[in-house]
Amino acid sequence: MIVSAAQLHLCIGDLDGNRLAARRAIEAAAEAGARLIVLPELTASGYVFDDRAEAMSLAEGLAGPTVAEWSDLAASRDLVIVGGVAERDAGGALFNTAVVVDSTGLRASYRKAHLWDREKEVFTPGDARPVLVDTAVGSIAVMVCYDLEFPEWMRFAALGGADIVCVPTNWPLAPRPEGERPGEVVRAQAAASTNRVYLIAADRCGTERGVSWTGGSTIIDPDGFAIAGPVSADEPALLLADIEPARARDKSLSDRNHVFDDRRLDLY
Amino acid sequence: MIVSAAQLHLCIGDLDGNRLAARRAIEAAAEAGARLIVLPELTASGYVFDDRAEAMSLAEGLAGPTVAEWSDLAASRDLVIVGGVAERDAGGALFNTAVVVDSTGLRASYRKAHLWDREKEVFTPGDARPVLVDTAVGSIAVMVCYDLEFPEWMRFAALGGADIVCVPTNWPLAPRPEGERPGEVVRAQAAASTNRVYLIAADRCGTERGVSWTGGSTIIDPDGFAIAGPVSADEPALLLADIEPARARDKSLSDRNHVFDDRRLDLY
Repeated sequence: MIVSAAQLHLCIGDLDGNRLAARRAIEAAAEAGARLIVLPELTASGYVFDDRAEAMSLAEGLAGPTVAEWSDLAASRDLVIVGGVAERDAGGALFNTAVVVDSTGLRASYRKAHLWDREKEVFTPGDARPVLVDTAVGSIAVMVCYDLEFPEWMRFAALGGADIVCVPTNWPLAPRPEGERPGEVVRAQAAASTNRVYLIAADRCGTERGVSWTGGSTIIDPDGFAIAGPVSADEPALLLADIEPARARDKSLSDRNHVFDDRRLDLY
Repeated sequence: MIVSAAQLHLCIGDLDGNRLAARRAIEAAAEAGARLIVLPELTASGYVFDDRAEAMSLAEGLAGPTVAEWSDLAASRDLVIVGGVAERDAGGALFNTAVVVDSTGLRASYRKAHLWDREKEVFTPGDARPVLVDTAVGSIAVMVCYDLEFPEWMRFAALGGADIVCVPTNWPLAPRPEGERPGEVVRAQAAASTNRVYLIAADRCGTERGVSWTGGSTIIDPDGFAIAGPVSADEPALLLADIEPARARDKSLSDRNHVFDDRRLDLY
């Protein structure tokens, strides 16, 4: 089964342009045979808001145009699409949300629970664990960017039965020594192998109000190795990988070892 | 402050030869200015026991010759030494133990809590959390090899106040794609950066009864980057790195982010 991570060039506030970039990537991925496509965090709105008011002006409901467009694309091509949306709820609260849509429409949404830096001034943190959805491509879990830095969160997703953990992300570029992979990619590899799941991280590119991005989109297998990417460049990219979701259901490391059963629950 | 990981060529059952290899590495590290030296798992005995009876014949108490020798070396050169010992207790139980010795003698011991593969037929698992010891070189925590694969364990060590997590290890060689670091090293990097601690992993080399080793000794900083190693070769090595233990006491990632305070304890 072919899966995809779309690393997109996004621009703050350019709702139409960003949606078009996402649409084109979805169409290209589908053309290449992908059944599951992961898009970045906050795909339509962009990320570096001047303030909460600007974020509010760029947010939408889950019945809004972004989810509607992705649902149309998923229905017409029988896809599963995961991507980030600046969500405004009926009460006017803002969430950094990721949605799962398939050919039947919106299947689930997840509100980022661990907020990064100035997001704390803009968004309300989610108060639910990573969402798990049974789809035509396997059991998928969704979390967003900084959520992935907390091994506790990944454990919930994996223990819940996820085959594939989808991570829409916007990873701000951090310095790293020559020859080293981005730390976020290293931690994603560790998260995948520690729990023996596939992990698809879709990052963005395009410097925005002085913030550059890691461009670290990667598809990782249950052994923790990159099977597509990491891109590690400030440029759009469409990653594709052929995966076997059933591999994520075998949690054995040896005849006597199992990543879940070997936990010392008597001591944690 | 200079710290060291000694990757040693060990031979099953060669107690004297293995102790000599350790002694020479300790002396060389001290000569190079190291104040803390980490040695492999099961340094004196070797690892690939035929059966429990053989392991029993190679085990010793914590008042035995291995700890005595390391204590003498630590006292004469004012060192902190962490290394693995096949421990036989008064009741005849066997543990895969790591000890911390300094100039005052044995400071602490830790019994591996997560056992790998055939270790389950030989050793009794420990039932205590990673040991934490305040030493002249900072607060150090100790765990052994497969323990490190459980992020829950690393959290305990870091939350307990460890500046440096010392990991005596014997990492059996596993296949990996060309150009990829060993998965164990990737997970060690993630464990260090997730908790913003130093991590020193001392692996072994020397094929033993058909088992080869990763030779993945590495010294990792709180950003998760290798500052010495990984060796990634089947050969002895002495890694040295100059560290600032106080760096591990700052858990901030940004003005608004902190690796401990950002945990969602209301949801875990």
